[in-house]
Amino acid sequence: MSIPQNVLDLLKDPDSLIPAIAQDAKTGEVLMLAYMNRESLTATLTSGRATYWSRSRNELWEKGATSGHTQEIQSIDLDCDGDAILLKVTQVGAACHTGDRTCFHQPIVTRSANSSSTANVSTVKNES
Amino acid sequence: MSIPQNVLDLLKDPDSLIPAIAQDAKTGEVLMLAYMNRESLTATLTSGRATYWSRSRNELWEKGATSGHTQEIQSIDLDCDGDAILLKVTQVGAACHTGDRTCFHQPIVTRSANSSSTANVSTVKNES
Repeated sequence: MSIPQNVLDLLKDPDSLIPAIAQDAKTGEVLMLAYMNRESLTATLTSGRATYWSRSRNELWEKGATSGHTQEIQSIDLDCDGDAILLKVTQVGAACHTGDRTCFHQPIVTRSANSSSTANVSTVKNES
Repeated sequence: MSIPQNVLDLLKDPDSLIPAIAQDAKTGEVLMLAYMNRESLTATLTSGRATYWSRSRNELWEKGATSGHTQEIQSIDLDCDGDAILLKVTQVGAACHTGDRTCFHQPIVTRSANSSSTANVSTVKNES
């Protein structure tokens, strides 16, 4: 299938590469951020599985095509100015190539739950 | 404050502009995507409020500085390859300039809850 005109009309620039956020449809966890262009969005709409554009390999990248850790699309929303995409997905296995469930596993700031002062925002000391 | 060296070490390129996702810390809703550079990350760590880099105005943009719709930082995580940021925030008011709670309010695909077939992924017909 091709991208319907009403969807193309919502994109700020249908020919540019834009960030796409994958969020677990069930838990709400943000899993990863990758990029999409018209070709990858078309592939995603056609297959129902998240397909990005690999900037390093300069080619289509169906998430999980080699690992089996696919992302089945539940919904896709564009942001207000049509230059970012939110995919709600059913994630099979781990989203991250490290084996972590989410790619966002490097904490740099945490805040204690019982604190209301910005002074208590502190950077995390990494052990490595 | 400046960005601690252990955080700089996690960034793929500390001098580049990278996408930053703001997620509601309480509801898990993805609110918006904007961009951060070293200067805006420093401002965010210092104030405890999300501060982005405006690509259109080419200047620091403290979210809510004019609207009052600030984002108080609860946590910040980097992704596995250090080129995307996830902010969990307490959002005051609406995240979107349109008045919508989230910027991702333009549905292009929805899937019926009782469907397990990718053939049922269908694009949304916009009324406008």
